[in-house]
Amino acid sequence: MRSKVYILGGYQTDFARNWSREGKGIQAMINEVMDGAFTVTEIEPKDIQAIHVGNFAGELYTMQAHLGSFPLNYDPVMRGLPTSRHEAACASGSIAALMARAEIEAGIYNLIMVLGVELMKSVDAKTGGNFLGTAAWYEKECRGIEFPFPKLFDRLYDVYDELYGLKYEHLAQISAINYENAKRNSKSQTRNWYMNKKHACSTGDYNLTIGKRLRATDCSQVTDGAAVIFLASQSNAQNYAKKHGLQIENIPYIQGWGHATAPIHFDDKAEEAKENEYILPHTRRAITDAYKRAGLNGPDEISCIETHDCFTITEYAAIEHFGLTKPGEAWKAIENGIIDFNGKCPINPSGGLIGVGHPVGTTGTRQLLDAYLQVSDKAGDYQVPGVRRAATLNIGGSATTNVVHIIGSDS
Amino acid sequence: MRSKVYILGGYQTDFARNWSREGKGIQAMINEVMDGAFTVTEIEPKDIQAIHVGNFAGELYTMQAHLGSFPLNYDPVMRGLPTSRHEAACASGSIAALMARAEIEAGIYNLIMVLGVELMKSVDAKTGGNFLGTAAWYEKECRGIEFPFPKLFDRLYDVYDELYGLKYEHLAQISAINYENAKRNSKSQTRNWYMNKKHACSTGDYNLTIGKRLRATDCSQVTDGAAVIFLASQSNAQNYAKKHGLQIENIPYIQGWGHATAPIHFDDKAEEAKENEYILPHTRRAITDAYKRAGLNGPDEISCIETHDCFTITEYAAIEHFGLTKPGEAWKAIENGIIDFNGKCPINPSGGLIGVGHPVGTTGTRQLLDAYLQVSDKAGDYQVPGVRRAATLNIGGSATTNVVHIIGSDS
Repeated sequence: MRSKVYILGGYQTDFARNWSREGKGIQAMINEVMDGAFTVTEIEPKDIQAIHVGNFAGELYTMQAHLGSFPLNYDPVMRGLPTSRHEAACASGSIAALMARAEIEAGIYNLIMVLGVELMKSVDAKTGGNFLGTAAWYEKECRGIEFPFPKLFDRLYDVYDELYGLKYEHLAQISAINYENAKRNSKSQTRNWYMNKKHACSTGDYNLTIGKRLRATDCSQVTDGAAVIFLASQSNAQNYAKKHGLQIENIPYIQGWGHATAPIHFDDKAEEAKENEYILPHTRRAITDAYKRAGLNGPDEISCIETHDCFTITEYAAIEHFGLTKPGEAWKAIENGIIDFNGKCPINPSGGLIGVGHPVGTTGTRQLLDAYLQVSDKAGDYQVPGVRRAATLNIGGSATTNVVHIIGSDS
Repeated sequence: MRSKVYILGGYQTDFARNWSREGKGIQAMINEVMDGAFTVTEIEPKDIQAIHVGNFAGELYTMQAHLGSFPLNYDPVMRGLPTSRHEAACASGSIAALMARAEIEAGIYNLIMVLGVELMKSVDAKTGGNFLGTAAWYEKECRGIEFPFPKLFDRLYDVYDELYGLKYEHLAQISAINYENAKRNSKSQTRNWYMNKKHACSTGDYNLTIGKRLRATDCSQVTDGAAVIFLASQSNAQNYAKKHGLQIENIPYIQGWGHATAPIHFDDKAEEAKENEYILPHTRRAITDAYKRAGLNGPDEISCIETHDCFTITEYAAIEHFGLTKPGEAWKAIENGIIDFNGKCPINPSGGLIGVGHPVGTTGTRQLLDAYLQVSDKAGDYQVPGVRRAATLNIGGSATTNVVHIIGSDS
């Protein structure tokens, strides 16, 4: 029988920081996030057995590949550890976690550090927007197009609008909730920004239209940031619990996960949307696989969700793909307050990619950290009361790579 | 008990091709290598359960990240499969294999496609040389330096020369053997090139000095190429054997592996070289870990090796790090013919990175394919007689990420 895979904690950097302005590079960011993670968990560098790094495009933003090896520079005691870097665009941080989990389940290692890292403010907005185009099919969908990604997700907007009708105010509400939630999160990028639903509903100078219909307030942020989580085998988690006077029943573990990839070309996705019950059938598959592995029938036993709101429309899709409503009825969950911070199933209590920020390769790891914090009642000012089980959905590209995790404890 | 992980075969593209000149991009390369792999193995796309892609820097060479998803475009039946891309510079192809092996050992999937891919001739030599700098610590070691990698490996030359003395003729002999071996390999890049030891020993217009002392003939090639291997669980391999009238005892499997990462900064490596029995202690560690997992005491039971000769000096180091000689005595194995094609332990019967070519993220996968071919007596004109067990060493950066595999069968 496979080992359960536990999360022993972790750390994220303050996503409001601009590391280039501070004169700091990617090694500094890696060192700081590791420092924080070792401090809060009281895990020691010498106890780590492997390192998996999630990173989208260090080659483009910082002319640095081979980022798996950089954490070794934190402490010479770590030299020689097996390291690697994993990429699936905005889902890179989750892929790193999937690989670490598999190695622990196989009994290869007992304690692995998963580190998501992305430095994005090293380039101007247009250059960065072009780099993000490499997460889609660059030649067919992005070359020569300014800010290609909002335009790709505008097409998801179109698909919804054609099939079910879509009112912009529902997207504005999603944006407003994420900004509002982010105000409670001392690590969020937008905690001091001004934004509310009225603002999101406006257009013009206060809220530029970026794609065809999507506006600035529908977009996640360009963010510098890193996050670490430590994944452990059952035996390692048991030792950790003993050492720290904890009960293993209270330590969160990965109860379920799903991983499914859609065709990268949005044209193919648009075709599939017409032929399936769910607009994004592979996103749905990742979610139902995770439910199945966790022994759940649906979202009823999920206390809160950290989902991928690269754009408001992506969260809109997530609502129904998680099964909180029937397909085409996500607006009901928005209107009846289910996804509010105080709702039945809050989405993005952290603030999500719109509020916390979206350092691309970090986001999946950050979501898992937030799920851990919620389940272990350590989320502080943005703690949702009584969380028993939290889910994450991390998406790479235009809903191409989909990774879902369900985190809970036995208490 | 973990499942043994078998190799059911695979395919590589002709490394002499220049895909940009043919007007073909990375999707075409992926389609062609998959076509070849499915044809020769008679495995069907619908039977694949997961895909791991090894790629170094698609973002730089082709402005395309998220390459894990591209194999799904080969056949719509594959849509929805879990996919990911893995990177550790020139060791990317081996990292993809390590991840696939772990998932099979954990019992998650039974049949996984590992695909290494790199398109490098899309840019001119100087631009490509600069891109390769991202495999080292770009800011500290490569920015503003023309062709930084030969210069980094010149430093390994220095380290050897200072500690043990190093005659250039031994490096020239390594180069000559690789070129000679490549002539037998119908997929090698240099099979029609002119090169021999006399030529390698010359300098000047016929053989430019690229680094301080390393010459053109000491360098691996800039190559376009892809390779696929299929990894399978024991139960899947058993079914495959039955279907194809084979004995599972004759199917090669991964008997051992090692994975160890050194500090990326060459300064740190130079320090470690002085303090350790082996100049590259983490490379040695990856090798001894692989021996241990395979139940071997050393290289005596290894029939041949596919090693990482990004430069002749890297193969020189590999000879003694594999234990074919004592540290500092690699020249003896060169002089007494141990590593010759007809020697006791031929190195790079395929031609290696110097002869076959070095599509960076593909190389680790190609080495595993060649190990499979040798063990299963399918290497054709470059078959080493009587191979029972083959080893691979794949290195990322300036000997930073080290991955070793030992492939054998029970026959």
